[in-house]
Amino acid sequence: MSILVVGSVAYDTVETPREKREKQLGGSASFFAIAALGRGAVRCVGVVGDDFRQEDLDLLAERGADVTGIVREPGDSFHWSGRYHDDMIERDTLATELGVFADFQPVIPDAWRDSDYLFLANIHPALQSHVLDQMNSPKLVALDTMNLWIENTPEDLAKILKRVDVLLVNDGEARQLTGKRSLAHAAAAIREMGPSRVIVKKGEHGAVYFGQEGVLSVPAIILDDVIDPTGAGDCFAGGFMGSLSDAGATRDSNDGVFRQAMVDGTVTASFCPEGFNVEGLLKIDDAAYTARMATLRGMMVP
Amino acid sequence: MSILVVGSVAYDTVETPREKREKQLGGSASFFAIAALGRGAVRCVGVVGDDFRQEDLDLLAERGADVTGIVREPGDSFHWSGRYHDDMIERDTLATELGVFADFQPVIPDAWRDSDYLFLANIHPALQSHVLDQMNSPKLVALDTMNLWIENTPEDLAKILKRVDVLLVNDGEARQLTGKRSLAHAAAAIREMGPSRVIVKKGEHGAVYFGQEGVLSVPAIILDDVIDPTGAGDCFAGGFMGSLSDAGATRDSNDGVFRQAMVDGTVTASFCPEGFNVEGLLKIDDAAYTARMATLRGMMVP
Repeated sequence: MSILVVGSVAYDTVETPREKREKQLGGSASFFAIAALGRGAVRCVGVVGDDFRQEDLDLLAERGADVTGIVREPGDSFHWSGRYHDDMIERDTLATELGVFADFQPVIPDAWRDSDYLFLANIHPALQSHVLDQMNSPKLVALDTMNLWIENTPEDLAKILKRVDVLLVNDGEARQLTGKRSLAHAAAAIREMGPSRVIVKKGEHGAVYFGQEGVLSVPAIILDDVIDPTGAGDCFAGGFMGSLSDAGATRDSNDGVFRQAMVDGTVTASFCPEGFNVEGLLKIDDAAYTARMATLRGMMVP
Repeated sequence: MSILVVGSVAYDTVETPREKREKQLGGSASFFAIAALGRGAVRCVGVVGDDFRQEDLDLLAERGADVTGIVREPGDSFHWSGRYHDDMIERDTLATELGVFADFQPVIPDAWRDSDYLFLANIHPALQSHVLDQMNSPKLVALDTMNLWIENTPEDLAKILKRVDVLLVNDGEARQLTGKRSLAHAAAAIREMGPSRVIVKKGEHGAVYFGQEGVLSVPAIILDDVIDPTGAGDCFAGGFMGSLSDAGATRDSNDGVFRQAMVDGTVTASFCPEGFNVEGLLKIDDAAYTARMATLRGMMVP
């Protein structure tokens, strides 16, 4: 089963209390694609500038992504810069330089329009709609968004929400989007906006799935050491969609495959903070994945 | 199996965005005793003033507590007053009037010194030691504490920690007590201070058990409506210790009974925020408990 992702392919400058790394591979589509672990041969649609290193595209390709949908435009690549606080949770954004991303008009290659799964990473909701317009009939569409679009483009967001199956948001965004304090009420309100399944991401506290048959709460795996949590949410999404692809899930599947995908997303995302940028993800192999799955199940099943 | 609790028996004035209730039954020992649901015939040691209503003592007794260890002294009962923010999580303490609690010197009745389980609710750590000095050899001792004692009486706290089996703290307190940012590191550091099992309470995000054989993360049950969360931590402790008592656990038991106790504590605590003060707890019956246990298992098991 094929997965298409549309999102940012970027450079991140990340400063933690211990170390600073300049212009490392980042962006939602990059994290997502690597985190899918080769499942779905992730087709990436994005844009980079002429400063983008070929070795970074090569890395994505080596990790199973199809990067032929990433176009190169004159100018600089999208660059995000942030500094983490001592708790390695709170962070300040120091700079967001859109570069070539400012004029990004995603074009889906003809051969990719029949992709089975579509992940609309966090970009302008009007662009998300524009992407979906180009698709044939994907088996399932998942969408990420953020406070910026909830505040500034609520009508565009409402339009795309009507057309997607799964929404991934963090707890603050779920409350902001719905005006509901209780997560139960917020999830119910989101489901009335369109997506029949809602995933609320809570960072170090894990993620909650509000499905068609009930709720599943998956704890984050407790890590010995957090190096850089940037991208963990997109890694969750990559692991989640990779799992759905493996299972051949559709929007009409029962909750079981989605619950398993929650667990796979959590296991995958747990590797992300263990290294700078995508380095943590690169350490995933079968043995490490299996061991961490056992840890997670031990944390979950009384 | 008998359970002894030493803590506050108090009046709480609680203000929420919707309602204000003045001088309702509260205090750690009260919540704990009712939450044990008759298991362990909880023996309560505490002090109240001459303003304390007999009907409140009668309520505790009706709910299975032995209140003959609650002494009445001239003066006012301990009174806490607080106001919840709109999120029903953050709160401001408006007043803490110790009253007769200021001179509380707990005396354990002779007949209670052989109690099987001891819960040292959140009082001055020197008093907690004083209580433990009076006990014969309980099968298990659990302790709650707070930032006040961590900051102001660290030596007294260190002394009692060496002598207890289970510490219950919230995540902020675990970090404050150990200076460790990572919960995994904080729990490991606490275990070196004495308690071989650590429970980190995270409010709406649930609770994490760091045991001898591994970690269990139990989500909080997602509630439709939160009326008043005051006392939920003590309700958790009451459900937890009641479960251990039912199972005949000792400090040497394997993790299985403690993991089940985590689930029981979570189910019990989930009723607390659904009513003001102890009113939520009073709605627990077999059918409600069983239904909520099924909900929690559905939330936990993928």
